[in-house]
Amino acid sequence: MNDSLNDGGVIQALSDLRRNIDDIDDKIVSLLADRQQVVSRVAAVKKAHNLPVYHPAREEDLISRLRQQARNAGLNPDCIEEVYRTIIHRSRIEQTSQLALKGIRPGGVVLIVGGRGGMGGFFRNCFHRAGYEVRILGSGDWPNAASLCAHADMVMISVPIDVACRVIRDISPFLRPGTVLCDITSIKTQPLAAMLAAYAGPVVGLHPLFGPSTSSLDKQVIVATSGRDEHACQWILDQFTAWGGIIVPSDAKEHDDIMAIVQALRHFATFAFGQFLNRQRISLARTLEFSSPIYRLELGMVGRLFAQDSSLYSEIIFASPERRELLRDFLTSLNENRDMLERGDKDLFQEEFRKIAEWFGPFSEQAMRESTFLIEKLTERF
Amino acid sequence: MNDSLNDGGVIQALSDLRRNIDDIDDKIVSLLADRQQVVSRVAAVKKAHNLPVYHPAREEDLISRLRQQARNAGLNPDCIEEVYRTIIHRSRIEQTSQLALKGIRPGGVVLIVGGRGGMGGFFRNCFHRAGYEVRILGSGDWPNAASLCAHADMVMISVPIDVACRVIRDISPFLRPGTVLCDITSIKTQPLAAMLAAYAGPVVGLHPLFGPSTSSLDKQVIVATSGRDEHACQWILDQFTAWGGIIVPSDAKEHDDIMAIVQALRHFATFAFGQFLNRQRISLARTLEFSSPIYRLELGMVGRLFAQDSSLYSEIIFASPERRELLRDFLTSLNENRDMLERGDKDLFQEEFRKIAEWFGPFSEQAMRESTFLIEKLTERF
Repeated sequence: MNDSLNDGGVIQALSDLRRNIDDIDDKIVSLLADRQQVVSRVAAVKKAHNLPVYHPAREEDLISRLRQQARNAGLNPDCIEEVYRTIIHRSRIEQTSQLALKGIRPGGVVLIVGGRGGMGGFFRNCFHRAGYEVRILGSGDWPNAASLCAHADMVMISVPIDVACRVIRDISPFLRPGTVLCDITSIKTQPLAAMLAAYAGPVVGLHPLFGPSTSSLDKQVIVATSGRDEHACQWILDQFTAWGGIIVPSDAKEHDDIMAIVQALRHFATFAFGQFLNRQRISLARTLEFSSPIYRLELGMVGRLFAQDSSLYSEIIFASPERRELLRDFLTSLNENRDMLERGDKDLFQEEFRKIAEWFGPFSEQAMRESTFLIEKLTERF
Repeated sequence: MNDSLNDGGVIQALSDLRRNIDDIDDKIVSLLADRQQVVSRVAAVKKAHNLPVYHPAREEDLISRLRQQARNAGLNPDCIEEVYRTIIHRSRIEQTSQLALKGIRPGGVVLIVGGRGGMGGFFRNCFHRAGYEVRILGSGDWPNAASLCAHADMVMISVPIDVACRVIRDISPFLRPGTVLCDITSIKTQPLAAMLAAYAGPVVGLHPLFGPSTSSLDKQVIVATSGRDEHACQWILDQFTAWGGIIVPSDAKEHDDIMAIVQALRHFATFAFGQFLNRQRISLARTLEFSSPIYRLELGMVGRLFAQDSSLYSEIIFASPERRELLRDFLTSLNENRDMLERGDKDLFQEEFRKIAEWFGPFSEQAMRESTFLIEKLTERF
């Protein structure tokens, strides 16, 4: 490399090197296309023999082997690992999207009550692609309820939580005995009780822990709460598993207690934070210029909430008197810090901090590792 | 593909296909090694001619070209983009790490007061690798302060905020007129005033918005607050820029106002959330089994705080009476929601929500996009 190139020489040298890089990239893209072909054949074999897509041991072997090879080639093994985690993830999505075509009961009839909403639409597509006959019952379709319910293998209640119990009572008289009745609302106690009271056949409560914009069921969690006749309901859980989802069994009370924390408390805290920023009239644009990636990420979580539907969040936060009680306890707990702030009592803060840190225990280390990884991703992309 | 293979046949077929994939991967790794070689040569040319590493237009051209090529090869262009964002990011880190060797004043003398702490150690390494003579003044080194300060081109104060002003007063008598005095504490008003009062030479206040575990200065933000003789201080800012950092100029008051929000409020809110989880004795492990990737991410942000040093956070939160006042206002603002919760007033919640959403404006959409990207990364990796 000649360090004394003139400007034109520098431009020429960079342009030659870039053409070099482009040639290499062409070969890489073409190899990735070849790889995709072979992966599709693997997926076809797996699909034909009911083998799972996700094969953690094979992935880890592959990564270890490539890390070693990277070392031999004088490359940073972390770099190769990162590139391949991306390639493998994409390859799993492709395989899962082939699996998405797999119906446990192809030709089965699925009725989605509220199938024109976000989550209803999501499941409508899932079942449709997998070869089911999917019917929709929207708010104007009640006159046809009897014919829509006829021969249904499953009826899924996908309506807002405040009308769920009423809809369950209204639809139940139309169901034939073998139909599985399920709901996908974010509360389980009342809807499950309503389903068991209104209908004598197989019942299961479901709560998909993801939104309608999710691109694949791969690794997504669905909580399942048994109602009645687990055996008759099993094919639905198998169907979600076949699509790559993870079923977490729980009883209705445990589910609701945990969701009060995981959803209501968290969303309320985020809401109240955004509310204060708004009242203070802080300049979002200028604070972002001052932002470390982690602040950007945290402010992003607040912004994300307010990009979504206000009624969705009011349903979650005001879902039950127990939830509102929990949120009032949260306000009381926060207020107990007022004296500490007024006195500027750093010692008390540190004592409290250490107590909580101890309770968080090993989760903190894991959280640190995961969030550091994400911050790097955020820095890389934006 | 023969669907009626027996078990042995399936294993053989999968194993053949996997060998096929391994062969392709070998070629890809070898091409990535070639690519790395060429990129190193680009970096060498850039370094020799003081050209910037980051070339956004070239990156976007490259991505567009590869997306088109992916389409031609029957590949998902998003997949190729994701793989190449990773490759390019890694390649930029490699180039920046070469740039890290670049000293604006190689041979210059840098004294770091508190250089045995986290951030002090971080900058000690940066300056050392770039060919500076780096000296450290720890708490036991005050008897040698005069000789340590002799011929220093820069003295950087890297001590906890509560002792910063005292340390500034103690070190100033030892400085020779040409030395640049700077601090890297997270508050700017008081330390900057202390530096200007105690020392008559060039002064600049700095606040690096990242922690000592950061792997590179690439795209990291440093806020710079002018004190005295900007011209004499410029080489330090140039040095950070040469290492890939971004300088954001601000005056001390604006900086402190924004940091009260970006750091104190945010950390206090996170602390109070963790405190409530602890008081409720919720089962972290079980809630994580119920968690969508976004809850995992948000809980991770809480865990991350408690994995760190309690004194760091007490310094940030209790840094000034104004900050404590802001936090008390935050508690008051939160409490104003108590009636709404008690009455179960969804309408008021939605009205407030929409008002805040409007104020967040386009940032919400951007936040949604960024956080969705991160959630995918989180799902992919963990």
